[in-house]
Amino acid sequence: MKILILHGPNLNLLGTREPSVYGTTTLDTINEGLQTLGDTLAVEVETFQSNHEGALLDALHATDANVIVLNAGALTHYSYALRDAIAAIKKPVVEVHLSNIHARPEPWRHHSVIAEVCAGSISGFGALSYELGMRAALDLSSASS
Amino acid sequence: MKILILHGPNLNLLGTREPSVYGTTTLDTINEGLQTLGDTLAVEVETFQSNHEGALLDALHATDANVIVLNAGALTHYSYALRDAIAAIKKPVVEVHLSNIHARPEPWRHHSVIAEVCAGSISGFGALSYELGMRAALDLSSASS
Amino acid sequence: MKILILHGPNLNLLGTREPSVYGTTTLDTINEGLQTLGDTLAVEVETFQSNHEGALLDALHATDANVIVLNAGALTHYSYALRDAIAAIKKPVVEVHLSNIHARPEPWRHHSVIAEVCAGSISGFGALSYELGMRAALDLSSASS
Amino acid sequence: MKILILHGPNLNLLGTREPSVYGTTTLDTINEGLQTLGDTLAVEVETFQSNHEGALLDALHATDANVIVLNAGALTHYSYALRDAIAAIKKPVVEVHLSNIHARPEPWRHHSVIAEVCAGSISGFGALSYELGMRAALDLSSASS
Amino acid sequence: MKILILHGPNLNLLGTREPSVYGTTTLDTINEGLQTLGDTLAVEVETFQSNHEGALLDALHATDANVIVLNAGALTHYSYALRDAIAAIKKPVVEVHLSNIHARPEPWRHHSVIAEVCAGSISGFGALSYELGMRAALDLSSASS
Amino acid sequence: MKILILHGPNLNLLGTREPSVYGTTTLDTINEGLQTLGDTLAVEVETFQSNHEGALLDALHATDANVIVLNAGALTHYSYALRDAIAAIKKPVVEVHLSNIHARPEPWRHHSVIAEVCAGSISGFGALSYELGMRAALDLSSASS
Amino acid sequence: MKILILHGPNLNLLGTREPSVYGTTTLDTINEGLQTLGDTLAVEVETFQSNHEGALLDALHATDANVIVLNAGALTHYSYALRDAIAAIKKPVVEVHLSNIHARPEPWRHHSVIAEVCAGSISGFGALSYELGMRAALDLSSASS
Amino acid sequence: MKILILHGPNLNLLGTREPSVYGTTTLDTINEGLQTLGDTLAVEVETFQSNHEGALLDALHATDANVIVLNAGALTHYSYALRDAIAAIKKPVVEVHLSNIHARPEPWRHHSVIAEVCAGSISGFGALSYELGMRAALDLSSASS
Amino acid sequence: MKILILHGPNLNLLGTREPSVYGTTTLDTINEGLQTLGDTLAVEVETFQSNHEGALLDALHATDANVIVLNAGALTHYSYALRDAIAAIKKPVVEVHLSNIHARPEPWRHHSVIAEVCAGSISGFGALSYELGMRAALDLSSASS
Amino acid sequence: MKILILHGPNLNLLGTREPSVYGTTTLDTINEGLQTLGDTLAVEVETFQSNHEGALLDALHATDANVIVLNAGALTHYSYALRDAIAAIKKPVVEVHLSNIHARPEPWRHHSVIAEVCAGSISGFGALSYELGMRAALDLSSASS
Amino acid sequence: MKILILHGPNLNLLGTREPSVYGTTTLDTINEGLQTLGDTLAVEVETFQSNHEGALLDALHATDANVIVLNAGALTHYSYALRDAIAAIKKPVVEVHLSNIHARPEPWRHHSVIAEVCAGSISGFGALSYELGMRAALDLSSASS
Amino acid sequence: MKILILHGPNLNLLGTREPSVYGTTTLDTINEGLQTLGDTLAVEVETFQSNHEGALLDALHATDANVIVLNAGALTHYSYALRDAIAAIKKPVVEVHLSNIHARPEPWRHHSVIAEVCAGSISGFGALSYELGMRAALDLSSASS
Repeated sequence: MKILILHGPNLNLLGTREPSVYGTTTLDTINEGLQTLGDTLAVEVETFQSNHEGALLDALHATDANVIVLNAGALTHYSYALRDAIAAIKKPVVEVHLSNIHARPEPWRHHSVIAEVCAGSISGFGALSYELGMRAALDLSSASS
Repeated sequence: MKILILHGPNLNLLGTREPSVYGTTTLDTINEGLQTLGDTLAVEVETFQSNHEGALLDALHATDANVIVLNAGALTHYSYALRDAIAAIKKPVVEVHLSNIHARPEPWRHHSVIAEVCAGSISGFGALSYELGMRAALDLSSASS
Repeated sequence: MKILILHGPNLNLLGTREPSVYGTTTLDTINEGLQTLGDTLAVEVETFQSNHEGALLDALHATDANVIVLNAGALTHYSYALRDAIAAIKKPVVEVHLSNIHARPEPWRHHSVIAEVCAGSISGFGALSYELGMRAALDLSSASS
Repeated sequence: MKILILHGPNLNLLGTREPSVYGTTTLDTINEGLQTLGDTLAVEVETFQSNHEGALLDALHATDANVIVLNAGALTHYSYALRDAIAAIKKPVVEVHLSNIHARPEPWRHHSVIAEVCAGSISGFGALSYELGMRAALDLSSASS
Repeated sequence: MKILILHGPNLNLLGTREPSVYGTTTLDTINEGLQTLGDTLAVEVETFQSNHEGALLDALHATDANVIVLNAGALTHYSYALRDAIAAIKKPVVEVHLSNIHARPEPWRHHSVIAEVCAGSISGFGALSYELGMRAALDLSSASS
Repeated sequence: MKILILHGPNLNLLGTREPSVYGTTTLDTINEGLQTLGDTLAVEVETFQSNHEGALLDALHATDANVIVLNAGALTHYSYALRDAIAAIKKPVVEVHLSNIHARPEPWRHHSVIAEVCAGSISGFGALSYELGMRAALDLSSASS
Repeated sequence: MKILILHGPNLNLLGTREPSVYGTTTLDTINEGLQTLGDTLAVEVETFQSNHEGALLDALHATDANVIVLNAGALTHYSYALRDAIAAIKKPVVEVHLSNIHARPEPWRHHSVIAEVCAGSISGFGALSYELGMRAALDLSSASS
Repeated sequence: MKILILHGPNLNLLGTREPSVYGTTTLDTINEGLQTLGDTLAVEVETFQSNHEGALLDALHATDANVIVLNAGALTHYSYALRDAIAAIKKPVVEVHLSNIHARPEPWRHHSVIAEVCAGSISGFGALSYELGMRAALDLSSASS
Repeated sequence: MKILILHGPNLNLLGTREPSVYGTTTLDTINEGLQTLGDTLAVEVETFQSNHEGALLDALHATDANVIVLNAGALTHYSYALRDAIAAIKKPVVEVHLSNIHARPEPWRHHSVIAEVCAGSISGFGALSYELGMRAALDLSSASS
Repeated sequence: MKILILHGPNLNLLGTREPSVYGTTTLDTINEGLQTLGDTLAVEVETFQSNHEGALLDALHATDANVIVLNAGALTHYSYALRDAIAAIKKPVVEVHLSNIHARPEPWRHHSVIAEVCAGSISGFGALSYELGMRAALDLSSASS
Repeated sequence: MKILILHGPNLNLLGTREPSVYGTTTLDTINEGLQTLGDTLAVEVETFQSNHEGALLDALHATDANVIVLNAGALTHYSYALRDAIAAIKKPVVEVHLSNIHARPEPWRHHSVIAEVCAGSISGFGALSYELGMRAALDLSSASS
Repeated sequence: MKILILHGPNLNLLGTREPSVYGTTTLDTINEGLQTLGDTLAVEVETFQSNHEGALLDALHATDANVIVLNAGALTHYSYALRDAIAAIKKPVVEVHLSNIHARPEPWRHHSVIAEVCAGSISGFGALSYELGMRAALDLSSASS
């Protein structure tokens, strides 16, 4: 069993970017926490971040993971190419967000163009969103296997 | 530490209502599972379901729970009274849904009028949505205490 | 064979409320007429009115009727909870209205949020709308049995 | 007393066109059923179908019927000329549809441009929609005479 | 010099149709008045009315008139085919209406799909709208000759 | 002369709920102030609060008051049933709000679905809104008597 | 009998402003033509132009003319104050425009906020629009006297 | 303590303008009533009316009043300049209207562009709206002093 | 194997109508070219043009062709009756346009109401659009046989 | 070479009005700075402010300046009359704003109705916006001479 | 003569991705078929696929092909950068799609942001769409040479 | 002090791409001009262009410049990822455009998704837009240091 944790644009800045919204934890710390959780749950964890939409598509196409936990960053709101990639790979994808995107003041953050092809969605719990996402992904994976 | 699990309209029909969308688990089974999880996590769990918007408001006003996990059912999409109640009680509320409301075919299911006053949102994982919601709620509660 | 006739908010005022729009017949007179028609058609008729959305949901959940004729009143235009209850109970529901809601001057009266889960719709014929609704409901019931 | 039953575009194909939506009864069978009902109710029944909007207008202008039952087909959704013709002739017109247009998946089917000048509307009961429409039309006609 | 006066759907009912909106003058009386005005202005006047969109298009294609005065009736609001015909024939067309369509209560009457290819527009003056339209058409015709 | 003061959902929390928006005065204090004002103006004052839409409708149907001052809370923005009840009872209703709903940041607070059947509207003056509402209601009542 | 010809903002620039749209005739020439027509028709003609919305309102309030021909310029599209002034003075107002505003490329030019209180509308015929407007105004005036 | 009562466009016509909507009281009578109320409440009252948006802005900029009661007339619905002036002067402004603008048939009357910078709003009570506005303004003024 | 080439309103004017948009080739020349291509591909070709929506519906209902190539002209944008006819006849229909409708300046040309029931769409290549449409239609026909 | 600096409504309050948004510099100080810059660049500078839309139009019509730098204040968002004046005078106009109107929270501030006839736009740099506007205007002026 | 065939995001997955929508043919097979057609038509064929928007722009900028056939995948619906690149290179571009994007259930698939700068569009014929696109491109190329 | 000049997609084509819109100056010439201006103002200037959204994000993340002048090209209108990067780096960013995007005919060019996080905006002055942007950026930088 293998999980791919995919981080989209600007998430490499975590810990320094708008901490009042996104918290002070860095991406490395989050990834380490997920590796530890993976060890606990006996599942292999791979993490990848890119600011390039195309690189995220390539990663989704190429991965041998069983399930994916995806924080698409701002691409969530306009990347129909990412949406089509998720639909194409036929693996469960769990959409996660650090902040509660449905409660953010900007209206465009309330709509996710990838939601309709994701198994489920978790948002608003900071780094915990990823951990809950991993638990949900494992549940989906065992259900579909 | 006490958690209130609040179920909105039609959720009493779980297990019989549109099982292709909502699954075959009954509400009693879900509530029992959450009690078990509460025991494991050493937290008191109270559950309540009503088809009456007013009864849900009364319950939110009266509860002595520290945090709330709320599946508002269809009220999610139009009950501004529920939204104002959540804003008024000043306790963390985690919004949960059995199905991924953002992926449902009806456009009106994509918008939650309570989201902007909830701490976070989890949808699409069936009964597991409640369990993840409880974990998130506990995390929020300890963070704010 | 049993039919439930369900009347929504403000219909208890029939005969006194805006008679130029809704006519001068009272709800009791309408119910009596439907009982008479039920006798003629050899079908049991139960009637229920409430101003409480939750009570209407409870009635839909609990009924042992084979088909339902529903005048949801103003809830027609915003009660997604009522819509979900109709979808959940898996019995034919015929939507009826005294006035022709599609011809009323207020734009919000032209859209019914329950229509997509009702078998059919009859509006504009005053008390006769209910009688035609009963005939249609019986036809649906025999077709599905 | 005379009723005109007016059928709009494509209704001549009934029985062969998309039977999963419109059923397998042909237009001739429907017309015969309405003639029989007319005999029972002692009312003269005239039927007319055309794929030409202009021919439907000409028929509405020329008819000596007391009331009209109209299934305008797809013209329901854009023919403001038909709407103006109904308003002009000053006779009760009952709008009928075989399917429940308010429950069809295409949004444009939910809006009828002729509704605001029709006495009432019946949709979703197949051939029975016409029969109920005839009963309603007769009731309207006797009320206005 | 020749003018074509073109009347669209339902205008044959003038004098009987909704006289509070459209007045009590019949179409024949209007046409006679325009013939008289044509004699005065030394211009040949041809008049044509149809309830068929296609017949109006055929008339526009075939006419040898120099200018056209067009009351398209309800087709004004949706017949893009009529709009394309006007654009195609390369002759000045003056749009006229008996009532002030921009002041009518129905929002759809405020938009004319043919306006963008007409030389000008006159509405609200009853039969006088046609006479003013004829004067404008002659002015346009002499300006373009 | 009798006035009914009707308070909608969540107004029982006044004084504790979001005091920066709604102030620190409790509902009991407001009601007492209105009783005092009633004594001064020689008018009987009855007060009622409920979180249940249906209970508010029942109260409007049953009251023997001459005029009503109504703060519908969040129901202001979606309860078409409340709107129809106001239209049905044929008594002057004055709409009041503690905050200036037209100046609140949420767009949905700017639209009142009950406004079109209320005699007038007062918002933004805290508890004083109710007092001004009582004065206006008395004026309306004497004008219509 | 007296007619007021009212010209709105920027019309003082006629003849120099965008001649491809508005022609090369100056406002003085137009006014002189209208005086001549007034002499022919035995009607007193007063003309007034202002770039100030308030001055146009003052003129409408103060005039002793029987009818008004109004080219409101760009105020046509947003001056609800002008609309209310027209409604208030209870005299027939004919709306005229040099260009066919419904055919102009900018969408905002297609909507007139004063149309709903004007007797009729003439647009697209250059200076002739005013002359036709005067003829229509006289006809309206004699009809209402 | 001084109050400025500011009247916008067309309000000088009060008593003659559309009395079915605005009543038969003249502006002078209203102003006299407010002076009397001012005497009673021991507050200086200044009144000003203009049909010129710019003059209203100048008055708002120049006034030495402590609070303002403003009936902006039709400018309510489009004058962002008026809105910015209110925001700039940092004094409480109470928005008043004679009719209930939220209940008027024209949709554009339901939105006030000045509301978001006014302390509160009162509409629908005729001349009484101004009196209630004066009472509210005094209350605001004493609260902020 | 037989192909019906169906031309909608105004296409009889080809070669003379707006040649900068639609080219200088006449409809006869296009039809001859398609006959020649039909000979080459060994398929019978029938062509039909009408300005009457009803005649196009009749032709679609009556044809014994295996596939249809349809240029619906302006009906493309509003004729839901044509859309329903295509859905009803259960034969592949290829939508073609001379100009690239998605690139035309008028927004209403960008939406085709018949697209959702056509097999595919070709636009922008002048007369070649028809030839490509014929090739596509034959391919679809052989695939479905 | 001469530049007209035109200031719209409320800009006379600069330095006192909402300093957190517009800064603390007064309009006189800004004008003096621009005069100094004019001296440096050897260009005559004229400045004018008015709260009256009509006065701004009069100034645009009458000026003998070669180019204009315009801060239209709130008129930016609704004064189509100002837009038409700019189009009419055929001189380059540079639109400037103190704040970044595209970043302001109110949606209506994001749209400028004068933009489509201005040469360019500068916003967000406080008093510096005017200086950059002067430099741009001079560049445009020399380019067009 | 040289043609560039450009494939956008996710098209590398063809044959495996949602075969019910996109068919079972792989991209290599399609490219080979186009090379064969190129040999037949004596035209050089170059093919390129990328999941990176930027790489597609670079390819468009750098190509020495005479015409381009472009399947932009999901970028069709939001990449204004791609649209600007097509407009910039001044070579005919034919837009092709495997499925009929105008008939797909998702509304966002119905709008192509690149259409307005493409010569024409072909969609719905699977791999044949490319072949028809090549034929159209050659025709355009010879017409423009 | 260091300024980063960032050029987005298709700007490498400057001088050849649509010169009627964007002018004939090449990007190299613009960059050289900015270097010269940098020398004059004693500020280090770095320039970078990419057609890859991800590369622009990487550049924004990595730069050690004090302020940024950004022409995002078409990404201006949809790249929320770019918007989030600007918000994240906490340095003043000045948005510049060669053409006046608010005056371009395409509606989508009027909205910038990055505007709300940029310090200010300059558009419409060709290469001069960059120079004015540099001056503004320096002013912002010294103000914030």
